[in-house]
Amino acid sequence: MAIVNDPGIVAEVTDLYLQYEEALSNNNLEVMDNLFWDAPEVVRFGVTENLYGSDEIRNFRASRPNPKIEREISNLQVVTFGKDTATVTLEFRRIINGVEGFGRQSQTWYRFTEGWKVVSAHVSLLPL
Amino acid sequence: MAIVNDPGIVAEVTDLYLQYEEALSNNNLEVMDNLFWDAPEVVRFGVTENLYGSDEIRNFRASRPNPKIEREISNLQVVTFGKDTATVTLEFRRIINGVEGFGRQSQTWYRFTEGWKVVSAHVSLLPL
Repeated sequence: MAIVNDPGIVAEVTDLYLQYEEALSNNNLEVMDNLFWDAPEVVRFGVTENLYGSDEIRNFRASRPNPKIEREISNLQVVTFGKDTATVTLEFRRIINGVEGFGRQSQTWYRFTEGWKVVSAHVSLLPL
Repeated sequence: MAIVNDPGIVAEVTDLYLQYEEALSNNNLEVMDNLFWDAPEVVRFGVTENLYGSDEIRNFRASRPNPKIEREISNLQVVTFGKDTATVTLEFRRIINGVEGFGRQSQTWYRFTEGWKVVSAHVSLLPL
């Protein structure tokens, strides 16, 4: 049976996730694009948009009016299944137009020959 | 390398997902609970709540004031990775307190010895 939360795999995915979070805060498009699966089947549901395929995701990131995402994250949880599958969830707090907002993010990661990639992601704000 | 979207695996997960959708619309708690992973690591971010572990998810479902979820789904997409991992995403339209709302749902499924289970789920509404 697949091992849930093998410590070595959890450490590996956690490290990659923290690279993603840093890239998000610095608007490092190259790192973000590289950590997402480059395929038409990748999905990213953002706070206000539904994006299908790596082209839509890349174009969205490249044209953000306020690209630097400042947020405090909490409850980061990485769960791994066997050697190739992981889920990453977290909650965050952001100030948006002067108003405090609380959100959630979930990602599915899969390890391909070329390494771990985000294959599905969902970010949303809780209603005020 | 793991096969993405093996047709047999896609059909299997799609069938299970449709069972989940039907259980949601009928508030069939037993089917919903049975299709979610029974573990403290399972996560469900709902429209207004962040739930960690199968106890919180089960208790939330059992105490919903308006349990019957009527919604029209669109863009259902099942993507499978190897034989044991899948993502399921969709968009939906609901009338909430007389107002039309548009939402998104994403789930990660993993196949354990006892069968496929949702290990992480996220449901959210787009801002009006």
